[in-house]
Amino acid sequence: MTQPILIGGEWRPADAVSNFQPLNPQTKEPTGEVYPVSSVSDVDQAVKIGAEASEQLLSVSANKIAQFLDLYADRIETRRDEIVEMAHRETAYPKETRLDGIELPRTTDQLRQAAKSARDRSWTQPVIDTKANIRSIYAALEGPVVVFGPNNFPLAFGSISGGDFAAAIAAGNPVIAKANSSHPGTTRLFAQEALAAVQDLDLPIGMVQLIYRTYHDVGERLVSHPLVGATGYTGSRSAGLVLKNAADRAGKPIYLELSSINPVVILPGALQERWEDLAEEFVSSCLLGTGQFCTNPGVVILQKGPETETFIQSLIQRFRDAPVGTLLGEGVEKGMVAGVRALRNAGAELLTGGQSGGGTGFCHQNTLLQATGVQFLAKSETLQEEAFGNESLLVLVDDLDQTCQVLRSLEGNLTGTIYSAQNGTDDVAYDRIAPILRRKVGRLSNDKMPTGVAVTPAMNHGGPFPATGHPGFTAVGIPAAITRFAQLQCFDNVRPSRLPAELEDENPLGIWRFVDGKWTN
Amino acid sequence: MTQPILIGGEWRPADAVSNFQPLNPQTKEPTGEVYPVSSVSDVDQAVKIGAEASEQLLSVSANKIAQFLDLYADRIETRRDEIVEMAHRETAYPKETRLDGIELPRTTDQLRQAAKSARDRSWTQPVIDTKANIRSIYAALEGPVVVFGPNNFPLAFGSISGGDFAAAIAAGNPVIAKANSSHPGTTRLFAQEALAAVQDLDLPIGMVQLIYRTYHDVGERLVSHPLVGATGYTGSRSAGLVLKNAADRAGKPIYLELSSINPVVILPGALQERWEDLAEEFVSSCLLGTGQFCTNPGVVILQKGPETETFIQSLIQRFRDAPVGTLLGEGVEKGMVAGVRALRNAGAELLTGGQSGGGTGFCHQNTLLQATGVQFLAKSETLQEEAFGNESLLVLVDDLDQTCQVLRSLEGNLTGTIYSAQNGTDDVAYDRIAPILRRKVGRLSNDKMPTGVAVTPAMNHGGPFPATGHPGFTAVGIPAAITRFAQLQCFDNVRPSRLPAELEDENPLGIWRFVDGKWTN
Repeated sequence: MTQPILIGGEWRPADAVSNFQPLNPQTKEPTGEVYPVSSVSDVDQAVKIGAEASEQLLSVSANKIAQFLDLYADRIETRRDEIVEMAHRETAYPKETRLDGIELPRTTDQLRQAAKSARDRSWTQPVIDTKANIRSIYAALEGPVVVFGPNNFPLAFGSISGGDFAAAIAAGNPVIAKANSSHPGTTRLFAQEALAAVQDLDLPIGMVQLIYRTYHDVGERLVSHPLVGATGYTGSRSAGLVLKNAADRAGKPIYLELSSINPVVILPGALQERWEDLAEEFVSSCLLGTGQFCTNPGVVILQKGPETETFIQSLIQRFRDAPVGTLLGEGVEKGMVAGVRALRNAGAELLTGGQSGGGTGFCHQNTLLQATGVQFLAKSETLQEEAFGNESLLVLVDDLDQTCQVLRSLEGNLTGTIYSAQNGTDDVAYDRIAPILRRKVGRLSNDKMPTGVAVTPAMNHGGPFPATGHPGFTAVGIPAAITRFAQLQCFDNVRPSRLPAELEDENPLGIWRFVDGKWTN
Repeated sequence: MTQPILIGGEWRPADAVSNFQPLNPQTKEPTGEVYPVSSVSDVDQAVKIGAEASEQLLSVSANKIAQFLDLYADRIETRRDEIVEMAHRETAYPKETRLDGIELPRTTDQLRQAAKSARDRSWTQPVIDTKANIRSIYAALEGPVVVFGPNNFPLAFGSISGGDFAAAIAAGNPVIAKANSSHPGTTRLFAQEALAAVQDLDLPIGMVQLIYRTYHDVGERLVSHPLVGATGYTGSRSAGLVLKNAADRAGKPIYLELSSINPVVILPGALQERWEDLAEEFVSSCLLGTGQFCTNPGVVILQKGPETETFIQSLIQRFRDAPVGTLLGEGVEKGMVAGVRALRNAGAELLTGGQSGGGTGFCHQNTLLQATGVQFLAKSETLQEEAFGNESLLVLVDDLDQTCQVLRSLEGNLTGTIYSAQNGTDDVAYDRIAPILRRKVGRLSNDKMPTGVAVTPAMNHGGPFPATGHPGFTAVGIPAAITRFAQLQCFDNVRPSRLPAELEDENPLGIWRFVDGKWTN
C-alpha cells in the first residue's frame, strides 16, 4: 500500500503521479514501503491549507508555539528507538555512534532551543525610536514555509524535524515539509509525532504538513506559489538552482544550502610541527559519516616539500586502512563515481581508491586525489566541483603566492580552515591568506576540521553563493536562523494599545530591545 | 562635448554606444549637456577596478571610512548652491521647499549617520559564544556594490549620494554608481565631491565610480558580474525585474525598491470625526512632490455613505484648486497617461483630472479616480498598478468584510495606513483589518499619511514583493540598511590575536555585542 501524505491534519492518499520504493543502502533491497510522488493538486491543497494556518497562527500565543516545540521534542524522545531504527534502515548510518548518540539529541536540542527563542521573543529584535514613535520587529511571514530536507541529516536537518523546520515554526509559520526521498519512513514517523503535538495543543491543523516527492515542475510550482511565504532547501546544487530560479521569479524568498568543498589550508610550519596529528584529524573528518557532511573537507591545500610527501603517504595509508562506509544510496554512489571521473578528466591524479565498492551495500572506496596548484588554476571550475562522499582532493602548490591564487579562484563555501604552527613560523603566511579565504566562506576555522557545526548563536552555517543563495544568512544557530523566515514590520505612530507586546513602552516581556540606540532589557 | 565617466579615479571618455541629452522638465528644452550610454567595456573596467578597491579597503580602518563620509557631507554643503541649482534644473523640484530645505540636509544627515555607524561598529552585530569560542560579525562583501538611483530623489537617494550609497560605503564596500538618466548633472557634481574626498584622504581610487546610462543587456551584465558584491536598485518595476532576474541567476544579492501604492484605509468613525482634516492631509500628501514619492498614497479605501460622499466632493475640489506640479520628465508624464488609461479601462471612474497638461512643462492634471470594492476585487491586478505621479484611486467598499477582501487582494507594499476614530468607535474594525494589512506592508501607520520616511533605526522602508525583492530588509534607517551590503562572517576557534577588534574578548571598541545570550557594551 502506498503511504498516505499529511494534509490538513489528516493522513490521506496522495493524488500520486507515480510511486517510489526506498532502498536499504546496506542491502540494496527495498525497505518494503511504497511512497507517492505528489501531483500539482496535492501541492495546491497543502499550500491553501498552509495559508489558512498562517493566518490562524496570528492569534496563537508565542508561548503556545514554544509549548508545541517542547512537546514535539518530548514525543520524539518517547519514540526514539523506532525513529533511530527506521533511520538506520533507510540511511545505513550507525545507530549508537551517529543516530542515537549524536543526531537525535541534536534534533531535540534544536527544537528546544527554538522553543526557548519563541518564548523569550528576543529573536524578533525589537527596535524603538521613542522620539519619532517608530518601532520595528521581525514577525512571521504571510503564508507557509516549505522545507526541503537533505539526504545526509535524516533527523537534525529532516524536513519536519530539523533546523529549518524549528526556525520556521519558532517564527510563527506553518511548515509544508517535502521529505527527502532517501528517508521517507523516518520523516513519516516525525510527522506523526508533530501532528500529535499539534492535536494535543489544539493548534491549527495546517501547521505541519508532509508530502514525499515531487517532480521538478511541481516543486517549482510549490516554491513559487503566490500563497507561500518562503522556502528552505538543503540538497544538490542542480535541483536547488531549479527551485531558486522559480522562487526568485515569483519574488519568494528561498534559502539554499547547495554545495561546498570546504577548503583546508595546512601551512608548512603546522605540518612540520604536528603532521601525524593532522593526518589523524583530517582522515577522521573526511571519512566521518562516509564523507557525507556539508562541511566535509573536500580540498586540502599543501605546499610542496618533503614533509608534505611524508604527510600524503600517511594519508594514503590511512585511507586504505580505514573501513569503507556505506553511502546513503545509489545516487550518492553514482555521484561519487561521476565526480571522481570528472576530477581525473581535469587532470587530478588518483592516489588511492577511485572505484565503487569496497564495503557493504552502496559504497565507494575511500578516495584521495591530487593536483598541482598550476593544474588547479588551469581548471579551477571543474576541480572545485563537489564529489559528495568519502573523497578529497589535495592541491600541491609551489609557494604562498600560488596558495593565494588558488584561494582567489574558489567559489563561495560554507567553511574555510587554516592550520598554522603554534610557534609563529606561519604567521606571516596566515596574514596573507586569511583575508582572501575569509570572504570566500561563511565560517573561518583555525586548527580544527570543519565537520563539527555547533548549534550556538554565533554559528554561521552559510556562505557566499553557490554555497548558499545569500551571504548574510545562517541555517544553523538560534536565534539568527529564525529571522530568515520572518518579515520586518515597522509600526509608525501606531497607538500604544495596538502594539505587539514586544514593542510596548514598558517592555512587559523583559526582552532585549534596541531603544534609542542602546540595548536594554 | 559628451561628459566623461568616472572610472578608477579619473574622469575619462566613455566607450559610448550612444549619447543622451537630459531635458529641463519645466522648459522641455535640453539642459545643454550630453551624456554617454556606456558599453560593456566601461562596465567591465569599472567592475575590475571596483573589485581591486574592495580588496584594498580591507586594510583601510573603519575610522577612515567614517572620515570619508563626514568629509564628503562637508564638501556637499560647500557646493550646496550649485548642486541645488543643477537638481532644480534637471528635476523641476522647488529649491527652497524641497531641494535645499529638505532633501540636501537629509542627504548630508544620512551620510553623517552612516559615518557614525561605520565608526562605532555596532552595525556589525558581534555575537560571541565564549564557551564554544565561536564568534560572528557582519563585514563588507567581496566586490563592489552597484547602486542604481531613482528619478525621484536626486540627492537623498542619488546613486552616489543617497541611502544605498551611504550604507554600502559604511559597510566598507566600494560603489559603482549608475546615475539616473533624469538628473545626470546632479549626480556628476556629487561624484566630483566624492572623488575629491577620496583623494583628500588617500583612499583607494576605485572606491567611488560613476557611469550614466546602460542598455538593459549591459545593466544585466553589471549586476551579474562575477566580481560584483551586490546591487541596490530603486526605480521602475519593469527595469528592476530585468536586473533582478540577471542578478538572481548569478547568485548575486540585489535589493530592489520597485513600486508601491501604499494603501490608506479611512474608517467611518475617523471620517465622521475629522473629515476636513483628513481631506487636507490626504491631498497634501498625495500631491507632495507632484505625487512622485515611493510612499505616495495611491489607493484610499473608504466605506460608502453620505460622509464619504461629502469627503470625496471635498477631495475633488481640492485636487482642482491645487496647482499642477511639474513632473520629472516626459517618461513620467507618459507613464501617468498610460496608468490612468489602464485604470479607466479596468472600470475606474474619473472624478477629476485625467489629462496631460494643466501646469508648466511636463505635467498632468491632479487626478482622482474611483472604483467600487466589487470592481476592485474583480480586477485587482490592474487596479493596483502604480500610476506614478499626482494621482490616486478611491475604492468605495460596501462594508468591513469587503474592506478585508480588498486588503487580502493586495500585493506587497512599502506602507499601509489606517485612520480610525479617536473615540474608539472604529476599534473593532481596526482589529479586524490591521492583521491583514500588517503582513502586506513594511510599515504600518496610524493616523498619519505615509509620505514622510524618517531616517531612524526603527524605520522600515521595505516590504514584501513586489514592493521590494525581500521582506526582511530596509533601504532607509541606519544601521539596519547597512547590513544589506554585508556578509555574515563566523570565526571558529580563531586565535585571539587574529580576531577583528569587534570580536576581541576585551571589547576594545566598547560596542554593543551579544555575548553568551546577553547584549553588553
